[in-house]
Amino acid sequence: MHFARVAIETPDGPQARIVVADNGSPERWIDARAAERLRQLRRGATGSGAARLAAALIPGSLSAALEVGEAFLEAARAAAESSDEEAVAAPGARRLPSIDAVAYRDFMAFEEHFVTASRKLRGRDPEPVLYELPVSYFGNAHAILGPEDEIPWPHYSDHMDYELELGIVIGRGGRDMQPDEALAHVLGLTVFNDFSARDIQGREMAAGLGPSKGKHFASAVGPRIVTLDSLPSALAMTARINGEVWSQGSTGTIMWPIAELIAWASAGEPLMAGTLLGSGTVGGGCGVELGRRLNPGDVVELEIEGIGVLRNRLGVPASEGWMPTPRTRRAI
Amino acid sequence: MHFARVAIETPDGPQARIVVADNGSPERWIDARAAERLRQLRRGATGSGAARLAAALIPGSLSAALEVGEAFLEAARAAAESSDEEAVAAPGARRLPSIDAVAYRDFMAFEEHFVTASRKLRGRDPEPVLYELPVSYFGNAHAILGPEDEIPWPHYSDHMDYELELGIVIGRGGRDMQPDEALAHVLGLTVFNDFSARDIQGREMAAGLGPSKGKHFASAVGPRIVTLDSLPSALAMTARINGEVWSQGSTGTIMWPIAELIAWASAGEPLMAGTLLGSGTVGGGCGVELGRRLNPGDVVELEIEGIGVLRNRLGVPASEGWMPTPRTRRAI
Repeated sequence: MHFARVAIETPDGPQARIVVADNGSPERWIDARAAERLRQLRRGATGSGAARLAAALIPGSLSAALEVGEAFLEAARAAAESSDEEAVAAPGARRLPSIDAVAYRDFMAFEEHFVTASRKLRGRDPEPVLYELPVSYFGNAHAILGPEDEIPWPHYSDHMDYELELGIVIGRGGRDMQPDEALAHVLGLTVFNDFSARDIQGREMAAGLGPSKGKHFASAVGPRIVTLDSLPSALAMTARINGEVWSQGSTGTIMWPIAELIAWASAGEPLMAGTLLGSGTVGGGCGVELGRRLNPGDVVELEIEGIGVLRNRLGVPASEGWMPTPRTRRAI
Repeated sequence: MHFARVAIETPDGPQARIVVADNGSPERWIDARAAERLRQLRRGATGSGAARLAAALIPGSLSAALEVGEAFLEAARAAAESSDEEAVAAPGARRLPSIDAVAYRDFMAFEEHFVTASRKLRGRDPEPVLYELPVSYFGNAHAILGPEDEIPWPHYSDHMDYELELGIVIGRGGRDMQPDEALAHVLGLTVFNDFSARDIQGREMAAGLGPSKGKHFASAVGPRIVTLDSLPSALAMTARINGEVWSQGSTGTIMWPIAELIAWASAGEPLMAGTLLGSGTVGGGCGVELGRRLNPGDVVELEIEGIGVLRNRLGVPASEGWMPTPRTRRAI
């Protein structure tokens, strides 16, 4: 089953809608709220009653929908299988981020990437802890953009890069999960681009608090979320810049399986439904590993087998912005 | 003006309520939604109309309320000044986290802390970038607890610590703010405890992605948010463990002013209303700097002048939980 989100125009401004599709016809998108409203009408609800119930069950926010849990998933499954032509989503609607994430956490689970990136960026082999724990950091969930959105180029960077990642969408929250129960908490997989500003990232990481402004300006997710039962276990991953293939990899090369990423993310802390987990970059899946960098206006297409193509154009560098004035070290 | 959140019991389970107080009587808490409902009744609304409007304007989530902006703030100010005894909140209600943050970002803005902590933990002076930029990381906003909540002690740690911080609550979102406009985006200040698991923090930080699981298990915020116009510019900060004073400092020793923290947080990325920013630990404001550590059951009280006391008890260590199995390094 497939989930996506689109924007439709209304007298109250753009409204987000969840659309769903069945494996058998993955391009036949059903407006899930419309299908649920029609289903409730057939069950005897009045027009306003059916609309009210459908809106509560299927809001525009996928994260909010997931708060309801099984009632939402049942309705979404029924919608995906609907033969009701009236519920088919209008074609051509603007695609929104597939998940409006309540939190976003990025791992570094592909060995080839962290070995190569460490050698290129720091001139040494990676730290042993990367073989002991699936290490991660939180990013800015409010800076996650959707398919075709232009990626802002922040004023504080001259060096932009992409990162080809698998996105894991948590459908059911939990805490202290074991790996063997973790996959049942996954709504599905998507394509994720962890855009990176390598110069500020390198400067800020020296402080020890993680990549910081080097990552927070933008990421992209989409174009759809596909449930695990609809996908083979190893998926080909490709990045094309302006149509040229730069990166090729496979989700099958991951060192920390998805189930262990989820278990560790939930160890001792809440992992909420609607969280987006990034796998970390696949081996060879960013410009740093290849000795290449992005230019203003470049079109970045990330493709994962069975999911689709996430396409974004990079904007031009912001002309100006505030920068801190260095402080003087005191005697302490 | 003062903001807090409490839980009341209803037939639908606990319900969060925003309560407000005026500077002149900071312990006379008004239920803001009740005051607004009564105000609309006096303006001629029916009972259900007044209740509906008040609920839309003043939900239980302070972050959701802040999405409305000025209409909410006007209603909150009117409530704080209300002489309506019927709107006074019932005493003794359980206090919730003052802000249910949509995002949480922690800085390291106090020089004495990062100098001392770097020497104690890494045996060297801090990195120069800490004098060049106010560096920060995102934490788990869903693990932020409230006053009197017990702090879970995760299974993967033997070394728990507190951090005495100023919390800055963003009331109005923005992007690319200049420092001179930043303070107008602040709802108010609060007390923040960035609980830390020092052993796992040290291990994970070696990977370069930040403090990770060493921070994400829990923080605490409260007991109230006080607007800037109600506070002097430098506030005394104190930490007491089981009643004994361990830390004393002042917000006046901050190296990066609040306005610059906000400007940098918003540089090139969205800073949402309802975000909680941590100042970073005040000098001497954690056990690592003092060569001390917390024990199970310890009561940690953080106090900031003009705001109040944030009190939490540490739980006992979780007996078991999943841990990753180390991987073998491949030849790459």
